[in-house]
Amino acid sequence: MFSKGNKDIQRLLVDSHSLSDLSSVIALLSWDQEVNMPSKGGAARAKQLATLSEIFHNKLISLKLPKVKTNNIYDLALIREMTKAKNRAKKIPTSLIKEFSETISLAQQDWQRAKKMNKFEVFAPSLKKVIKLKLQMAKLLKSKGQTLYDVMLDEFEPGLSETEISLVFNKIKIDLSKRVSELKVLTQNADKRIANKKFEVGTKVIFDMGYDLAAGRIDRSAHPFTTTFDRNDVRITTWENKRDFRPKLYATIHEAGHALYEQGLNPELDRLYLGEGGGLSGGVGMAMHESQSRLWENMIGRSEEFCNKYLSPETFKVVNVIKPSPVRVEADEVSYGLHIIIRFEIERELINGQIKVEDLPKIWREKYKKYLGIIPKNDAEGTLQDIHWAHGAFGYFPNYFLGSLIASQLLNTAKKQIDIYNFKLLREWLRKNIHQYGRIYTTKELLLKITGEDLNPRYFLDYIDQKFTKMYNLSK
Amino acid sequence: MFSKGNKDIQRLLVDSHSLSDLSSVIALLSWDQEVNMPSKGGAARAKQLATLSEIFHNKLISLKLPKVKTNNIYDLALIREMTKAKNRAKKIPTSLIKEFSETISLAQQDWQRAKKMNKFEVFAPSLKKVIKLKLQMAKLLKSKGQTLYDVMLDEFEPGLSETEISLVFNKIKIDLSKRVSELKVLTQNADKRIANKKFEVGTKVIFDMGYDLAAGRIDRSAHPFTTTFDRNDVRITTWENKRDFRPKLYATIHEAGHALYEQGLNPELDRLYLGEGGGLSGGVGMAMHESQSRLWENMIGRSEEFCNKYLSPETFKVVNVIKPSPVRVEADEVSYGLHIIIRFEIERELINGQIKVEDLPKIWREKYKKYLGIIPKNDAEGTLQDIHWAHGAFGYFPNYFLGSLIASQLLNTAKKQIDIYNFKLLREWLRKNIHQYGRIYTTKELLLKITGEDLNPRYFLDYIDQKFTKMYNLSK
Repeated sequence: MFSKGNKDIQRLLVDSHSLSDLSSVIALLSWDQEVNMPSKGGAARAKQLATLSEIFHNKLISLKLPKVKTNNIYDLALIREMTKAKNRAKKIPTSLIKEFSETISLAQQDWQRAKKMNKFEVFAPSLKKVIKLKLQMAKLLKSKGQTLYDVMLDEFEPGLSETEISLVFNKIKIDLSKRVSELKVLTQNADKRIANKKFEVGTKVIFDMGYDLAAGRIDRSAHPFTTTFDRNDVRITTWENKRDFRPKLYATIHEAGHALYEQGLNPELDRLYLGEGGGLSGGVGMAMHESQSRLWENMIGRSEEFCNKYLSPETFKVVNVIKPSPVRVEADEVSYGLHIIIRFEIERELINGQIKVEDLPKIWREKYKKYLGIIPKNDAEGTLQDIHWAHGAFGYFPNYFLGSLIASQLLNTAKKQIDIYNFKLLREWLRKNIHQYGRIYTTKELLLKITGEDLNPRYFLDYIDQKFTKMYNLSK
Repeated sequence: MFSKGNKDIQRLLVDSHSLSDLSSVIALLSWDQEVNMPSKGGAARAKQLATLSEIFHNKLISLKLPKVKTNNIYDLALIREMTKAKNRAKKIPTSLIKEFSETISLAQQDWQRAKKMNKFEVFAPSLKKVIKLKLQMAKLLKSKGQTLYDVMLDEFEPGLSETEISLVFNKIKIDLSKRVSELKVLTQNADKRIANKKFEVGTKVIFDMGYDLAAGRIDRSAHPFTTTFDRNDVRITTWENKRDFRPKLYATIHEAGHALYEQGLNPELDRLYLGEGGGLSGGVGMAMHESQSRLWENMIGRSEEFCNKYLSPETFKVVNVIKPSPVRVEADEVSYGLHIIIRFEIERELINGQIKVEDLPKIWREKYKKYLGIIPKNDAEGTLQDIHWAHGAFGYFPNYFLGSLIASQLLNTAKKQIDIYNFKLLREWLRKNIHQYGRIYTTKELLLKITGEDLNPRYFLDYIDQKFTKMYNLSK
């Protein structure tokens, strides 16, 4: 742990606590905005968020960074993350931070309105403003060799670049398309009527996963999410669906997967501000974070063992129907990757100025036609389905699919050591190997440390192939 | 309104906006603590509140106050309140502010626990700590001629003193006791079984009162309260009672009465920090604020006109049964004043060091025996019933009864001008005469301006006498 005797480190910890508190408060304001706030409260909320962002930013740029010689990995991580955060902050004027904060708060409200009204035009002006400010900030933050989109990627998963993602995605998208085509046919006869059944098992599942409700709560929101105010206050939201048990169940498991990461932090890392990463500051980066949520949602939640225990044997095929649909969060786990690749390609071009905001609905439809063979019937289930861009979270989407890839690689190692369908064993394995560390190690370091190799998408394809081969008794 | 052309005033308004935002955020953290926070989240929440209080305090003491020559009442009020707030803040070290903030956050959690366990001892250590810090602050704030308790009173109703309250309370308590004894007998035969009926009219009533739910929301909490984050986000809480419709209905109306005050502020006074006063910073002071809640709760909500419209004619006698009970918030409107007088006498002696915390349950029982002829059967319905002391809100209680006195004086004037049972007319009258002004006028100024005289408790006694004389056809 952190050096107890080092005054500079101790002072830095105190500053880190204040920053962490402010960051938690900002997260609470945002959570409340999506879960509780009355409709007219939006303008004042945007101002409150702007004022807090300004205070946070000023605190960050006036941070005193010590010169400490140490081999202690905790001290080193603290100094590394605080230095990075300060250097980032110094490049952006406070007025821009404040304007951005107010803008995204209002943009989220416009997005909600637009989605309800099913009209992209209602959201477009806000989105333009968000992009303009994001670009302004990215230009100020850009280091040599980075693209503007790289800057945005780095915010959610430190060090991630568009070149790196392209390498992975361009190769795998051919494999994915091939599998979607085959599996669509193979799985089409599963008895979909079962999806109408009510399986009210979400709460039991996440309890068994180990999500501590005395240190969390479940609410509803327009878009399910997880937010952390402290290791002991990690809240998730979900949504309702009356005609199909799957969206609610899998959203709940997904968010609980995030929440376990946050609740599993080493208590000695409590109340530390360790850099960017949305409300989920406990985790190392969003690719690793999404690996946790997608691991529980899919590799566990759509397994035969899970279905037999929590649902019924015949659901196994139903929760594994491969059928391209327009909505990402309701997608099966094979076509899901293509939803992400579509978003990656679109937002990259949007940020590089090759696409105009006005054209988004059209381009969205074209890409969905091309990659998934379907056309969203309206904006609400098309361009407006995700809240991310309203948050200014460009560069977030790739982490979902990277998360799936990481998850299968992790589980490939885990299953050699434990029974991964024993929730307690799996949770403790994840906690011991990942959760406890927060941002002490990077995602790359962790993955290498645990699995002995760098990211290898092969594990995901193998996982898919093995699953369906077994499910439908195919010969290899 | 504020001078548009005056740079100093404009700069002060900007600072006032930031302070107002921070104050709203602190209010949100507290609201969430009581309404949503999971049980384990308390320690981190206390830290977050402490960090924000420190930032708020530092902002206040570094405020630049302009020397402005003006006759504009808005400018004058702004300078007056900001000067007062800064001068108060300067006297208290930041470390004490921070410690106090963390202490009351934890004390509220201990109070909740103690109340559930029905054990005063669980709360006593926290309460001692709160009192110690309150005394420390009061000593630093005390001006010449003020008692320590005066300092605390001033925080909620500027300028209020214990001498002034004693004068009013000592006189009226004899009149009250007399009426409680008589009316207890007179009203004892009302058909109390009606109280078991379900009247689910709370939401309709507060809608008719004009509480704007698009700028507010209703939740449940251990103790009903109102909190304001902005004129457009004013939230109330209430509680449940399955055996009696009255507690929930009247708590709801009471809180909505507060909320109307906040929602009725002149929009040009939005986002201004105008001094102390809990979450209810829109109002001039808590005596005036409580006059609004108690006016709607009692003078309107327990009127014959109200019962005929929202409940049923036979409820009129039931909601006006005078029967001393141990719980303040469930008390009838005549014995209510005695609940307040008990608290006033106890907290005054507690602050003056004449009572020890350990002896509170005993003294509480003695006072209830003496003034109301009853003995609370346990701590939960005795000393632990109110959250106020856990908040450090010593000096708050007197405002409830002063509120009743002010309310009857206001209505005595209003009924000469409008039909007070027409909710729309009444709300607009209150808005025009009181709500819109925020803290521009003091309570004394407002009362004099509206009714032509200073506080006169006679109106309250007359109101009670007239009501029961008519209800029971007594000859005068």
